[in-house]
Amino acid sequence: MGLGGLLVGLFLVSAVLVGTSVRHGVSRAEPEPEPELELAEWDPASGAFPEDSLWPLPQSLRTSPRQLQLAPDRFQIVHGAGSSAGPACALLQDAFRRYYEYMFGYARWLQRGRKGLAAKPELAQLQVVISSPEPGCNGYPQLASSEAYRLTITEPVAVLKADEVWGALRGLETFSQLVHEDDYGSFLVNASEIYDFPRFAHRGILLDTSRHYLPLKSILTNLGAYSYNHIYTPTDVHLVIEYARLRGIRVIPEFDTPGHTQSWGQGQKDLLTPCYSGKQPSGSFGPVNPILNTTYDFMTKFFKEISSVFPDDYIHLGGDEVSFACWKSNPEVKEFMKKQGFGIDYAKLESYYIQKILDIVSSYNKGYVVWQEVFDNKAQLKPDTVIEVWMGNNYVQELSSVTGAGFTAILAAPWYLDYISYGQDWKKYYSVEPLDFPGSEKQKKLVIGGEACLWGEFVDATNLTPRLWPRASAVGERLWSSRNVTDLKDAYKRLSNHRCRMLSRGIAAEPVFVGYCAHEARRR
Amino acid sequence: MGLGGLLVGLFLVSAVLVGTSVRHGVSRAEPEPEPELELAEWDPASGAFPEDSLWPLPQSLRTSPRQLQLAPDRFQIVHGAGSSAGPACALLQDAFRRYYEYMFGYARWLQRGRKGLAAKPELAQLQVVISSPEPGCNGYPQLASSEAYRLTITEPVAVLKADEVWGALRGLETFSQLVHEDDYGSFLVNASEIYDFPRFAHRGILLDTSRHYLPLKSILTNLGAYSYNHIYTPTDVHLVIEYARLRGIRVIPEFDTPGHTQSWGQGQKDLLTPCYSGKQPSGSFGPVNPILNTTYDFMTKFFKEISSVFPDDYIHLGGDEVSFACWKSNPEVKEFMKKQGFGIDYAKLESYYIQKILDIVSSYNKGYVVWQEVFDNKAQLKPDTVIEVWMGNNYVQELSSVTGAGFTAILAAPWYLDYISYGQDWKKYYSVEPLDFPGSEKQKKLVIGGEACLWGEFVDATNLTPRLWPRASAVGERLWSSRNVTDLKDAYKRLSNHRCRMLSRGIAAEPVFVGYCAHEARRR
Repeated sequence: MGLGGLLVGLFLVSAVLVGTSVRHGVSRAEPEPEPELELAEWDPASGAFPEDSLWPLPQSLRTSPRQLQLAPDRFQIVHGAGSSAGPACALLQDAFRRYYEYMFGYARWLQRGRKGLAAKPELAQLQVVISSPEPGCNGYPQLASSEAYRLTITEPVAVLKADEVWGALRGLETFSQLVHEDDYGSFLVNASEIYDFPRFAHRGILLDTSRHYLPLKSILTNLGAYSYNHIYTPTDVHLVIEYARLRGIRVIPEFDTPGHTQSWGQGQKDLLTPCYSGKQPSGSFGPVNPILNTTYDFMTKFFKEISSVFPDDYIHLGGDEVSFACWKSNPEVKEFMKKQGFGIDYAKLESYYIQKILDIVSSYNKGYVVWQEVFDNKAQLKPDTVIEVWMGNNYVQELSSVTGAGFTAILAAPWYLDYISYGQDWKKYYSVEPLDFPGSEKQKKLVIGGEACLWGEFVDATNLTPRLWPRASAVGERLWSSRNVTDLKDAYKRLSNHRCRMLSRGIAAEPVFVGYCAHEARRR
Repeated sequence: MGLGGLLVGLFLVSAVLVGTSVRHGVSRAEPEPEPELELAEWDPASGAFPEDSLWPLPQSLRTSPRQLQLAPDRFQIVHGAGSSAGPACALLQDAFRRYYEYMFGYARWLQRGRKGLAAKPELAQLQVVISSPEPGCNGYPQLASSEAYRLTITEPVAVLKADEVWGALRGLETFSQLVHEDDYGSFLVNASEIYDFPRFAHRGILLDTSRHYLPLKSILTNLGAYSYNHIYTPTDVHLVIEYARLRGIRVIPEFDTPGHTQSWGQGQKDLLTPCYSGKQPSGSFGPVNPILNTTYDFMTKFFKEISSVFPDDYIHLGGDEVSFACWKSNPEVKEFMKKQGFGIDYAKLESYYIQKILDIVSSYNKGYVVWQEVFDNKAQLKPDTVIEVWMGNNYVQELSSVTGAGFTAILAAPWYLDYISYGQDWKKYYSVEPLDFPGSEKQKKLVIGGEACLWGEFVDATNLTPRLWPRASAVGERLWSSRNVTDLKDAYKRLSNHRCRMLSRGIAAEPVFVGYCAHEARRR
């Protein structure tokens, strides 16, 4: 809400990993359960295959049957020798504490009988080593940030190596996913060797705060919101950005113009085009009025503020679904069209507006993302413009056209999570191959990733979390893991387990299918 | 969970009302908002039409523009003169307190400036008068209970008259829905006259606790549940039944046999039929074994306990989706078929089993509900058997057949809320007319109502509430209100408002469409 189409685009939250497991390819998964069978979700305590707990699957993974034991009261995550980050790196300190809690936090509440333990070698530490002279502790993640890491788990210490803190965050997640609890309450991890990196750099989630207020926290103006308290204060915005930064997540705001802007009209006089009914103004308003200088004066001030508040290199400028009916009805707009030589091609007027906005935003040294219509309508775009492909009917061809014209692309079309349907629709999202379109290798490289979009017509705080998770996780693995990680049966088992892990971390992810989670059994 | 298909069938929770408003028929509702318009949900504080806040619409409603004012620190709900219920009626005392909280509870937390109030007449009391010599304070609601009430709101006191406490509960709900707060924080109600009663006596919600454990609280056995703590203790069951009773809601347990019983096998040896692969047992098990005396010994004990724990007159015995494959594979079952003269008609074996179960349950003076297959397979049924029609493909004809054979019917088929789809699917549920099938007036009278079913393959505690509400509310009005209450635009406005009311009462109902709730604005 506020500001028409204000959207917060987040990189896929936490746990975005991948893989070509050494074991992978041989299907170990059970067939998908029939409703009648009432199969349980996989119990991590059975622990036969450590990679059954991983989501997304790492690029390369070797595990050994050799199990190491972790003692919660002794085990530590520490900065390793030679790391360019140390105790002053608050981002890592915070992550060490967070992952310790994820692994052992709830164990403190259990009355566990530690009996019958076989003597096992102990894993005493996880040492984290950052190699880049600029580890990134105080910076923001960017499109070009390195998220690669190497994780070696063997006694007496495990070592996690990464160029930057962003890779360390991903490696900590993987390590935490490998640690499991056996039936006797012992924490175990298999000796392992992992090398991992994301297949695509952009793995986003789009949340729509315009159709319903989402009590996340963000934004600035108290004009244009539905009511005085449905706004995001500057403090809210900073909180969200910092919370995301600590997890290696970028926050990209979308301010969609010239359509989807009805609420802006309440805060800014003359910003919207007055629609006409015959020769009289009808009293209703259409898209942003593209023919007034005052419009661009406002946008200049507006995006200056936005650019300073949001640290990300990119702003999403929208540009989708502009209805021309109101522009067509307005005699002054018609006059302007004539003067500019646009004829009756209102797409040209739209492009005229968009190009002015792009120029404004460029002047603040920001890159921009736009919806595909801006490209389709032939606006002149800077070469580094990112085009988001969202129309479901022909996205394969659109990817081909966009990248063929040399533009960078983000794919959203097959991942509109607001379109719900009965059953395990995560399989549909999972089975998309983003690079399966006609084009050269060079074109394929221009696809930097994708976004799972949860538009808000029917979503608010009451149903956001279970509708988003674990469906968005399917997109997450598709965008992180290797192209050949496509086995639905294997994914079913790992996703069910990942969903249970989300529950245990306080995220109310909905069930993948029938069954229960092992930690539900242990913790009640 | 536990016990295979254990289901808890509840009558539609709270707020189940209806109507032929005097004003109704003239559409006052605005057209359904287009996404672009971003229309707000209706603000009850605008209060122009008091019935815009009602769900479901009462059978008869007259309102006057004359507004009465309620002072939260003076207004009381009391037992009226001549009522057969008094302060000893804990059910009503509890309801008085509950509805006082709903109406005024949150006002205590507000810093409201009471300025600019026009002097309005004050409504000092709501007097509740129960006329039946047996008001029902300590009883349970039944199919034949009276839920009718008459509500007269005029200064200085409003009067709510009902035969039994169940009608008083419905009238309290309606009264609470009519009280609204204006922009200055004053509580107002329009002078009104309402006469109301439900169109159908059975307005149910089916919750499935077998596919996922629902932390509601219910049931008995610690055998057969997925794990030791996913059970409902006897105390849980009593809590649910009492919570429901205080709100005039019946609790009908379903124990579905002979199919859907895989988990029973874990608790009861020899209960399930061993399946064969050729001449050898395959190691898997099918439906309940209908050829052993021990089966019926177990069921006799089991249903004796169930009958004593659940006070309702009815038990749902299931009988749906029995797969014959396992029975067909088993040589002893085949031998039994021959001996009984069933030939190869396994529906006869199913009927044989069901009839024995029906006899057992009858012996405990319980009525029973069964799924339509039991009727379709021509089991001999007692005339008072209730048949639940659930198959979506031809439910109109099935209603005709079931009632044509003289049986009572409940309609569930068009109201399977687990089948989700994009958009406002409440309209689909709302537009069903349960009596629109070929049949005599006598047949129509045999349809006692319907059930909104939320099966649990993809539902658990993470998403139950927003998936159920307000979609089930659409079924609620269909089953309470008059047949001619069918205006979708009017219903949209009232349902949006009802959903906001659910939020303010702590029920996380999902949004009907874009917009916000007035109380969100006032309370933050």
